Amino acid sequence: MTYQLHYWPTIQGRGEFVRLALEAAGVDYVDVAREPPKQGGGEAALVRRLKDPHNPWPPFAPPFLVHGSVFIGQTAAILLYLGPRLHLVGDMEQERVWTHQIQLTIADVVAEAHDTHHPVGTGLYYEDQKPEAARVAQSFREERIPKFLNWFEQVLRHNPAGDTHLVGDALSYADLSLFQLVEGLRYAFPKATARALAATPAVVKLHDNVGRRQRVQEYLNSPRRIAFNEDGIFRRYPELDG
Amino acid sequence: MTYQLHYWPTIQGRGEFVRLALEAAGVDYVDVAREPPKQGGGEAALVRRLKDPHNPWPPFAPPFLVHGSVFIGQTAAILLYLGPRLHLVGDMEQERVWTHQIQLTIADVVAEAHDTHHPVGTGLYYEDQKPEAARVAQSFREERIPKFLNWFEQVLRHNPAGDTHLVGDALSYADLSLFQLVEGLRYAFPKATARALAATPAVVKLHDNVGRRQRVQEYLNSPRRIAFNEDGIFRRYPELDG
Repeated sequence: MTYQLHYWPTIQGRGEFVRLALEAAGVDYVDVAREPPKQGGGEAALVRRLKDPHNPWPPFAPPFLVHGSVFIGQTAAILLYLGPRLHLVGDMEQERVWTHQIQLTIADVVAEAHDTHHPVGTGLYYEDQKPEAARVAQSFREERIPKFLNWFEQVLRHNPAGDTHLVGDALSYADLSLFQLVEGLRYAFPKATARALAATPAVVKLHDNVGRRQRVQEYLNSPRRIAFNEDGIFRRYPELDG
Repeated sequence: MTYQLHYWPTIQGRGEFVRLALEAAGVDYVDVAREPPKQGGGEAALVRRLKDPHNPWPPFAPPFLVHGSVFIGQTAAILLYLGPRLHLVGDMEQERVWTHQIQLTIADVVAEAHDTHHPVGTGLYYEDQKPEAARVAQSFREERIPKFLNWFEQVLRHNPAGDTHLVGDALSYADLSLFQLVEGLRYAFPKATARALAATPAVVKLHDNVGRRQRVQEYLNSPRRIAFNEDGIFRRYPELDG
């Protein structure tokens, strides 16, 4: 049964955490909104499913995953479901809930990164909230990025199986998501992120290891990987970097 | 094995979603930071565990749960773990992931409610970010509260088992959390929330049903229920309500 990912077709955004898991696992999947409308794809297909009045499990927002009769929204919930199926999480309950806990903390950073350019409201443009964005970005750069990256560094260093992976001694969806978080932070806040990463060598090593994995590398070099841009969550507005 | 909840002892905050689940299930638990220091409680005990350098699963922040050798942070992850043990989630995987997805959406509202009084940074006082807070609160009141409450209304109405519960025909931790969300929104934004709830009768009914449950009612009337206050997530600043 093919996994059907539904996400906006022109940005990495939150959908990228799911794309990376599917790509790293090497499974077949359809990125629905990026398929031609004639083949049932396009943004219209995504919106149709999002607003389907008969769906007993209506997602609040993309990304959402359709897998047979299963229908799941919320990035972390999608990865919770995919984890065991893609062999991207351990078998023990403590490992699974720990991996999920790390993922939820990554989701918190992602939400805060979004709020640096949209602190007032998602319904407004960045240009309409620049003074607020400047203050939020300063706090994010100076306090939050170091605090979060230091926490991931501690998680890696405390891992009894060594600091190559966040959980145990095998790749998990949390590793892939931390790779993506570092990618995004480096794109949006190159200076602030470089300063913070100087103190977190294990995070840098994990990022580099994940990026060198064959399937991940093939994906990153393929047209399936959308470039970062200023419609996504991680946006490069030089005035917000310090 | 007794559940040990670790959360700040003077606020409802995110810990309240866990307290409500434990109370509604009628299980024994210890609210560690509210126990006397002589009996191993107090805020110092919480901080000691939070910063334990030997913990292989260090939580990013409270709340966290200790259950035997299991150690879990992140509110939604704690409820994911407690759900089956407290009989507050169904047996089928689709029900479990759907309940969790609803919980994650509740967590999103909670984070946005927090940002209405702390839009710039958690390290600053509300008084240091009042102009930003006024703009964020307006967007939260006018767009986000109605949008989220309407989504919960749709979830209730689309439930094939009827609109008494969010998932299936039995109480879940998501029902308890939606009760708490309504409580918090009514406290912090009484006018805006009343306006939005006028359009979501099923949400109001669920809130009232949960509040009438015997164990929930006993809890709410007990000294264990901390009153809302302006140190928590839901704060009543009249200038932020419309």
